[in-house]
Amino acid sequence: MNRQIVLASRPEGLPALDNFALVSGDMPVPGPGQFLLAHHYLGLAPAARIRMGAARSYAPPLPIGGVIYGQAVGRVGASRHPQFQEGDLVVSTDAGWQEYSVSDGARASRIDAAIAPERVWLGALGVSGLTAYVGLLDVGGPRATDTVVVSAAAGAVGSAVGQIARIKGCRVVGIAGGSAKCRYVTQELGLDASVDYHAADFARQLADACHAGIDLYFDNVGGAVRDTVWPLMNDFGRVVVCGQISEYGATAPAAGPGWFSLLTKRLSVRGFLLRDHEERHAAAVADMSRWYREGRIKGREQIVEGLEQAPAAFIRMLQGGNLGKTLVRLTTS
Amino acid sequence: MNRQIVLASRPEGLPALDNFALVSGDMPVPGPGQFLLAHHYLGLAPAARIRMGAARSYAPPLPIGGVIYGQAVGRVGASRHPQFQEGDLVVSTDAGWQEYSVSDGARASRIDAAIAPERVWLGALGVSGLTAYVGLLDVGGPRATDTVVVSAAAGAVGSAVGQIARIKGCRVVGIAGGSAKCRYVTQELGLDASVDYHAADFARQLADACHAGIDLYFDNVGGAVRDTVWPLMNDFGRVVVCGQISEYGATAPAAGPGWFSLLTKRLSVRGFLLRDHEERHAAAVADMSRWYREGRIKGREQIVEGLEQAPAAFIRMLQGGNLGKTLVRLTTS
Repeated sequence: MNRQIVLASRPEGLPALDNFALVSGDMPVPGPGQFLLAHHYLGLAPAARIRMGAARSYAPPLPIGGVIYGQAVGRVGASRHPQFQEGDLVVSTDAGWQEYSVSDGARASRIDAAIAPERVWLGALGVSGLTAYVGLLDVGGPRATDTVVVSAAAGAVGSAVGQIARIKGCRVVGIAGGSAKCRYVTQELGLDASVDYHAADFARQLADACHAGIDLYFDNVGGAVRDTVWPLMNDFGRVVVCGQISEYGATAPAAGPGWFSLLTKRLSVRGFLLRDHEERHAAAVADMSRWYREGRIKGREQIVEGLEQAPAAFIRMLQGGNLGKTLVRLTTS
Repeated sequence: MNRQIVLASRPEGLPALDNFALVSGDMPVPGPGQFLLAHHYLGLAPAARIRMGAARSYAPPLPIGGVIYGQAVGRVGASRHPQFQEGDLVVSTDAGWQEYSVSDGARASRIDAAIAPERVWLGALGVSGLTAYVGLLDVGGPRATDTVVVSAAAGAVGSAVGQIARIKGCRVVGIAGGSAKCRYVTQELGLDASVDYHAADFARQLADACHAGIDLYFDNVGGAVRDTVWPLMNDFGRVVVCGQISEYGATAPAAGPGWFSLLTKRLSVRGFLLRDHEERHAAAVADMSRWYREGRIKGREQIVEGLEQAPAAFIRMLQGGNLGKTLVRLTTS
């Protein structure tokens, strides 16, 4: 049997537990050119919330009864795929919230557990880390003289963004919710400063932390945080739009910041998705692996046990309750 | 004497005639490295409205009593500048609304009246045309398969944008106010289609004219027109923010369109000012001059007579009452 978490009903705003259902499906059987993957860990991603809604975005909405979108790392079972052998450790980015999946290899790659444990291949060395790498370096183009601000700085993507920007010599300010995350951002990740967006004087604190203005904003959240960042942008500033967590539950898109300063400050704003940058994956994994081995890229994982815990962990993540990458450990064989 | 139009009081919203005053100043005298320019034509630019306000933008606000910002073409008088000789025909981009100005040459260049009459060097071959050239080609990056939409398509910048995009093989849709401008855009400028933003069913008409969506939007106006364009943008679409006329009289910046589609469609939005692209002027003038001689770039000028007419012509331009570049003819010697 293959236990799965499926979409029971579409959420309005923040998902509730009853939007999810645990079901048992048949064990999938790989066809020609496919392999079976037994999932050891699932990686939860806020973007899964987008697909739970009815609106078409960059992906069609998940149908009711469909398996929730998610990444997994695990071991190849039966394989009819020439590049993946039984026993290989593999990360798959469209594995879904289930115990087993079948892959044609298009969104899967082998991992090297000698470089980092399996779970890290869903975080700093996985989709989150690669998103940070491509978004910051290719889309954002940081310069050593830049002040870089990253929101959700204690999250899976944000923590990698902040550390890569530090490696590139930037002054880096992380925005996070609560003092524990803010401490993590400066003390463990080594960012230059952190600012708690829950603080009553958040705008003033951010301005103080960015005394030379902001050259590059890596936006994981949108909404009110972005609107506080916006007036601090310097001339020729760049904004990388990577995530918009504040909008994932919205029924209508929120307005953006004024465009007049886009003109007067000659800003560049660019949205991106990792999936469009496949050609950069190898270089990203190589650099991130080296930095990880050197201790320059750290990450934390918050691990819950058992597939049935995935919905609660996901909801907690969307509420900002987690630090680092949120994983679900499964016991498959 | 040097007659000048100065800022008498700061406008709220649309300027009124009493925000301007006609004064007589002393004839300016060029110092070392400077020359005197006798203005034949002034070129009016909506951006002058920005500097009439109290807010700092990319330029400090004009002080009360300061000469209104504007371009001019004219003839060099007394010169103590090694590169500009008495008798040279010159265009100056910070000449101001006055009969004479003194220049250090930094924002001035000689023109070739054999290529086009003086007035054209304030329009298609002047700041407006160069803004279109740099903004469309360098910032927007049009491809022959693109559908390009330009707002204020009958205006000085927009008309050049539309024609350059046609030269580059794009399908080009112009947005303009009123049927006369819309006819001009298709019949004289040769754009593929035009849409009247005054029409009750503007959004539907625009969608019909852009049946394959919009790949590149050249935004001269911001506001409601931009918000109508926004949902039609294609994946990987690009938006060039060149002007924001709808906001020039606003007391507070208007909100922008939602950023969620910036992410889901991987859009790029970039504000720019011509002044940051000096290194492209020579190439732009060369290309634009050639296209002008070949009849592929046309422009119209609406000419009013006498410095005292400048404020009324400027207000009419901000209201959308003009077609092409608005010029003021002076009689200096």
